[in-house]
Amino acid sequence: MAAPTEVVNLAQKLALFGDHWAPKVIAEMNDYQFKLVKLKGEFVWHSHADTDEVFLVLSGQLVIELRAGRVALSAGELYVVPKGVEHKPVAIEECQVMLIEPRGVVNTGAAGGALQAENDVWI
Amino acid sequence: MAAPTEVVNLAQKLALFGDHWAPKVIAEMNDYQFKLVKLKGEFVWHSHADTDEVFLVLSGQLVIELRAGRVALSAGELYVVPKGVEHKPVAIEECQVMLIEPRGVVNTGAAGGALQAENDVWI
Repeated sequence: MAAPTEVVNLAQKLALFGDHWAPKVIAEMNDYQFKLVKLKGEFVWHSHADTDEVFLVLSGQLVIELRAGRVALSAGELYVVPKGVEHKPVAIEECQVMLIEPRGVVNTGAAGGALQAENDVWI
Repeated sequence: MAAPTEVVNLAQKLALFGDHWAPKVIAEMNDYQFKLVKLKGEFVWHSHADTDEVFLVLSGQLVIELRAGRVALSAGELYVVPKGVEHKPVAIEECQVMLIEPRGVVNTGAAGGALQAENDVWI
Protein backbone atom coordinates (compact mmCIF):
# COMPACT_ATOMS: atom_id res chain seq x y z
CA MET A 1 0.00 0.00 0.00
CA ALA A 2 1.29 3.42 -0.93
CA ALA A 3 1.78 5.90 1.88
CA PRO A 4 -0.87 8.62 2.11
CA THR A 5 -0.14 11.49 -0.24
CA GLU A 6 0.45 15.00 1.06
CA VAL A 7 -2.26 17.21 2.55
CA VAL A 8 -2.04 20.61 0.83
CA ASN A 9 -2.72 23.64 3.01
CA LEU A 10 -3.62 26.53 0.71
CA ALA A 11 -2.60 29.30 3.12
CA GLN A 12 0.78 27.69 3.76
CA LYS A 13 1.41 27.36 0.04
CA LEU A 14 0.31 30.95 -0.64
CA ALA A 15 2.81 32.19 1.93
CA LEU A 16 5.67 30.69 -0.09
CA PHE A 17 5.58 33.16 -2.99
CA GLY A 18 4.81 36.77 -3.77
CA ASP A 19 5.10 37.19 -7.50
CA HIS A 20 2.08 38.00 -9.62
CA TRP A 21 0.67 36.19 -12.66
CA ALA A 22 2.93 33.19 -12.05
CA PRO A 23 0.86 30.08 -11.23
CA LYS A 24 2.35 27.45 -8.90
CA VAL A 25 1.18 23.86 -9.06
CA ILE A 26 0.11 22.41 -5.71
CA ALA A 27 -1.60 19.16 -6.72
CA GLU A 28 -2.48 16.92 -9.61
CA MET A 29 -5.63 14.87 -10.22
CA ASN A 30 -5.26 12.55 -13.21
CA ASP A 31 -3.96 14.91 -15.93
CA TYR A 32 -5.34 18.05 -14.30
CA GLN A 33 -3.48 20.51 -12.11
CA PHE A 34 -4.46 22.71 -9.18
CA LYS A 35 -2.48 25.95 -9.21
CA LEU A 36 -2.27 28.91 -6.86
CA VAL A 37 -1.67 32.34 -8.31
CA LYS A 38 -1.60 35.92 -7.03
CA LEU A 39 -3.03 38.49 -9.41
CA LYS A 40 -2.60 42.26 -9.38
CA GLY A 41 -3.19 44.64 -12.24
CA GLU A 42 -4.32 43.78 -15.75
CA PHE A 43 -3.49 40.59 -17.58
CA VAL A 44 -3.56 40.16 -21.37
CA TRP A 45 -6.47 39.10 -23.53
CA HIS A 46 -6.10 35.43 -24.32
CA SER A 47 -7.99 32.18 -24.66
CA HIS A 48 -7.33 28.45 -24.32
CA ALA A 49 -8.35 26.70 -27.50
CA ASP A 50 -8.52 23.20 -26.06
CA THR A 51 -9.91 23.50 -22.56
CA ASP A 52 -12.20 25.18 -20.08
CA GLU A 53 -10.44 26.89 -17.17
CA VAL A 54 -11.70 27.29 -13.60
CA PHE A 55 -10.98 30.28 -11.36
CA LEU A 56 -11.76 29.91 -7.63
CA VAL A 57 -11.16 33.18 -5.78
CA LEU A 58 -9.60 32.60 -2.35
CA SER A 59 -9.19 36.24 -1.30
CA GLY A 60 -9.72 39.67 -2.79
CA GLN A 61 -11.72 40.70 -5.83
CA LEU A 62 -11.25 39.57 -9.41
CA VAL A 63 -12.83 40.89 -12.58
CA ILE A 64 -12.72 38.68 -15.63
CA GLU A 65 -13.32 40.75 -18.73
CA LEU A 66 -14.95 38.92 -21.61
CA ARG A 67 -15.71 40.17 -25.10
CA ALA A 68 -19.40 39.76 -24.26
CA GLY A 69 -19.26 41.45 -20.85
CA ARG A 70 -17.47 41.00 -17.56
CA VAL A 71 -17.87 39.00 -14.39
CA ALA A 72 -16.90 40.13 -10.89
CA LEU A 73 -15.76 37.50 -8.40
CA SER A 74 -15.14 37.67 -4.66
CA ALA A 75 -13.64 35.16 -2.25
CA GLY A 76 -15.59 31.91 -2.28
CA GLU A 77 -16.75 32.33 -5.85
CA LEU A 78 -15.93 30.10 -8.78
CA TYR A 79 -16.12 30.76 -12.50
CA VAL A 80 -15.60 28.52 -15.52
CA VAL A 81 -14.12 30.24 -18.57
CA PRO A 82 -15.32 28.08 -21.45
CA LYS A 83 -12.90 26.66 -23.98
CA GLY A 84 -11.97 29.18 -26.64
CA VAL A 85 -13.53 32.19 -24.90
CA GLU A 86 -11.28 35.24 -24.81
CA HIS A 87 -10.79 36.64 -21.33
CA LYS A 88 -8.67 39.15 -19.46
CA PRO A 89 -8.35 38.92 -15.67
CA VAL A 90 -8.07 42.25 -13.83
CA ALA A 91 -7.42 42.76 -10.10
CA ILE A 92 -7.21 46.30 -8.71
CA GLU A 93 -5.76 45.01 -5.45
CA GLU A 94 -3.98 41.70 -5.01
CA CYS A 95 -6.27 38.75 -5.41
CA GLN A 96 -5.48 35.12 -4.58
CA VAL A 97 -6.87 32.47 -6.88
CA MET A 98 -6.85 28.72 -7.36
CA LEU A 99 -6.82 27.67 -11.01
CA ILE A 100 -7.90 24.21 -12.12
CA GLU A 101 -7.07 23.12 -15.65
CA PRO A 102 -5.28 20.35 -17.56
CA ARG A 103 -1.55 19.92 -17.16
CA GLY A 104 0.30 21.91 -19.81
CA VAL A 105 -1.96 24.96 -20.07
CA VAL A 106 0.09 28.15 -20.47
CA ASN A 107 -1.23 31.17 -18.59
CA THR A 108 -1.30 33.44 -21.64
CA GLY A 109 -2.72 30.85 -24.04
CA ALA A 110 -1.37 31.62 -27.51
CA ALA A 111 -1.06 35.34 -26.78
CA GLY A 112 2.39 35.12 -25.22
CA GLY A 113 4.08 38.35 -24.12
CA ALA A 114 5.85 39.58 -21.03
CA LEU A 115 3.36 38.01 -18.62
CA GLN A 116 3.78 34.48 -19.96
CA ALA A 117 4.87 32.42 -16.97
CA GLU A 118 7.01 29.33 -16.80
CA ASN A 119 4.70 26.35 -16.82
CA ASP A 120 4.52 23.42 -14.39
CA VAL A 121 6.28 25.17 -11.50
CA TRP A 122 5.52 23.32 -8.25
CA ILE A 123 5.64 24.65 -4.74
CA MET B 1 -20.29 35.52 -28.59
CA ALA B 2 -21.81 33.44 -25.85
CA ALA B 3 -23.08 35.29 -22.80
CA PRO B 4 -20.87 34.98 -19.72
CA THR B 5 -21.55 31.79 -17.81
CA GLU B 6 -22.76 31.87 -14.22
CA VAL B 7 -20.63 32.91 -11.27
CA VAL B 8 -20.96 30.21 -8.60
CA ASN B 9 -21.02 31.41 -5.00
CA LEU B 10 -20.10 28.47 -2.79
CA ALA B 11 -21.83 29.75 0.36
CA GLN B 12 -25.05 30.45 -1.54
CA LYS B 13 -25.03 26.97 -3.01
CA LEU B 14 -24.25 25.36 0.36
CA ALA B 15 -27.28 27.10 1.85
CA LEU B 16 -29.57 25.30 -0.60
CA PHE B 17 -29.31 21.83 0.91
CA GLY B 18 -28.86 20.07 4.21
CA ASP B 19 -28.58 16.38 3.48
CA HIS B 20 -25.37 14.50 4.13
CA TRP B 21 -23.28 12.35 1.79
CA ALA B 22 -25.23 13.57 -1.26
CA PRO B 23 -22.97 15.56 -3.62
CA LYS B 24 -24.49 18.39 -5.65
CA VAL B 25 -22.89 19.49 -8.90
CA ILE B 26 -22.21 23.24 -9.13
CA ALA B 27 -19.98 23.49 -12.21
CA GLU B 28 -18.38 21.53 -15.02
CA MET B 29 -14.97 21.97 -16.61
CA ASN B 30 -14.56 19.82 -19.72
CA ASP B 31 -15.67 16.37 -18.50
CA TYR B 32 -14.96 17.11 -14.84
CA GLN B 33 -17.43 18.22 -12.19
CA PHE B 34 -17.22 20.39 -9.09
CA LYS B 35 -19.54 19.14 -6.38
CA LEU B 36 -20.48 20.42 -2.94
CA VAL B 37 -21.24 17.92 -0.22
CA LYS B 38 -21.95 18.01 3.51
CA LEU B 39 -20.47 15.14 5.48
CA LYS B 40 -21.33 13.96 8.97
CA GLY B 41 -20.58 10.60 10.49
CA GLU B 42 -18.80 7.68 8.86
CA PHE B 43 -18.93 6.84 5.19
CA VAL B 44 -18.19 3.42 3.71
CA TRP B 45 -14.85 2.05 2.57
CA HIS B 46 -14.65 2.39 -1.20
CA SER B 47 -12.36 3.29 -4.06
CA HIS B 48 -12.63 4.68 -7.57
CA ALA B 49 -10.88 2.35 -9.99
CA ASP B 50 -10.54 4.81 -12.84
CA THR B 51 -9.79 8.19 -11.31
CA ASP B 52 -8.15 10.28 -8.66
CA GLU B 53 -10.55 12.29 -6.49
CA VAL B 54 -9.95 15.68 -4.87
CA PHE B 55 -11.37 16.79 -1.53
CA LEU B 56 -11.17 20.50 -0.68
CA VAL B 57 -12.47 21.18 2.84
CA LEU B 58 -14.48 24.42 3.03
CA SER B 59 -15.48 24.23 6.70
CA GLY B 60 -15.12 21.81 9.58
CA GLN B 61 -12.79 18.88 10.00
CA LEU B 62 -12.52 15.78 7.85
CA VAL B 63 -10.62 12.59 8.44
CA ILE B 64 -9.97 10.37 5.45
CA GLU B 65 -9.13 6.88 6.62
CA LEU B 66 -6.84 4.93 4.32
CA ARG B 67 -5.67 1.33 4.62
CA ALA B 68 -2.15 2.71 5.08
CA GLY B 69 -3.05 5.38 7.63
CA ARG B 70 -5.28 8.40 7.87
CA VAL B 71 -5.16 12.07 6.95
CA ALA B 72 -6.84 14.90 8.88
CA LEU B 73 -8.04 17.92 6.92
CA SER B 74 -9.27 21.33 8.06
CA ALA B 75 -10.85 24.20 6.13
CA GLY B 76 -8.54 25.40 3.37
CA GLU B 77 -6.87 22.04 2.93
CA LEU B 78 -6.92 19.86 -0.14
CA TYR B 79 -6.23 16.18 -0.57
CA VAL B 80 -5.96 13.95 -3.62
CA VAL B 81 -7.12 10.37 -3.12
CA PRO B 82 -5.22 8.46 -5.80
CA LYS B 83 -7.00 6.22 -8.26
CA GLY B 84 -7.79 2.82 -6.80
CA VAL B 85 -6.90 3.73 -3.22
CA GLU B 86 -9.48 2.60 -0.67
CA HIS B 87 -10.69 5.40 1.57
CA LYS B 88 -13.38 6.12 4.14
CA PRO B 89 -14.28 9.75 4.96
CA VAL B 90 -15.26 10.41 8.58
CA ALA B 91 -16.55 13.69 10.03
CA ILE B 92 -17.41 13.89 13.73
CA GLU B 93 -19.21 17.21 13.23
CA GLU B 94 -20.64 18.42 9.94
CA CYS B 95 -17.97 19.22 7.41
CA GLN B 96 -18.45 21.04 4.09
CA VAL B 97 -16.39 19.85 1.16
CA MET B 98 -15.89 20.55 -2.52
CA LEU B 99 -15.18 17.42 -4.55
CA ILE B 100 -13.54 17.56 -7.97
CA GLU B 101 -13.66 14.46 -10.15
CA PRO B 102 -14.76 13.31 -13.61
CA ARG B 103 -18.43 13.38 -14.51
CA GLY B 104 -20.05 10.04 -13.70
CA VAL B 105 -18.16 9.13 -10.54
CA VAL B 106 -20.48 7.54 -7.97
CA ASN B 107 -19.85 8.52 -4.36
CA THR B 108 -19.55 4.95 -3.09
CA GLY B 109 -17.46 3.66 -5.99
CA ALA B 110 -18.31 -0.02 -6.49
CA ALA B 111 -19.17 -0.50 -2.82
CA GLY B 112 -22.80 0.64 -3.13
CA GLY B 113 -25.01 0.45 -0.05
CA ALA B 114 -27.40 2.78 1.73
CA LEU B 115 -25.16 5.83 1.34
CA GLN B 116 -24.94 5.61 -2.45
CA ALA B 117 -26.24 8.95 -3.70
CA GLU B 118 -28.00 9.79 -6.92
CA ASN B 119 -25.38 10.97 -9.37
CA ASP B 120 -25.24 14.20 -11.41
CA VAL B 121 -27.65 16.17 -9.20
CA TRP B 122 -27.19 19.89 -9.89
CA ILE B 123 -28.06 22.80 -7.65
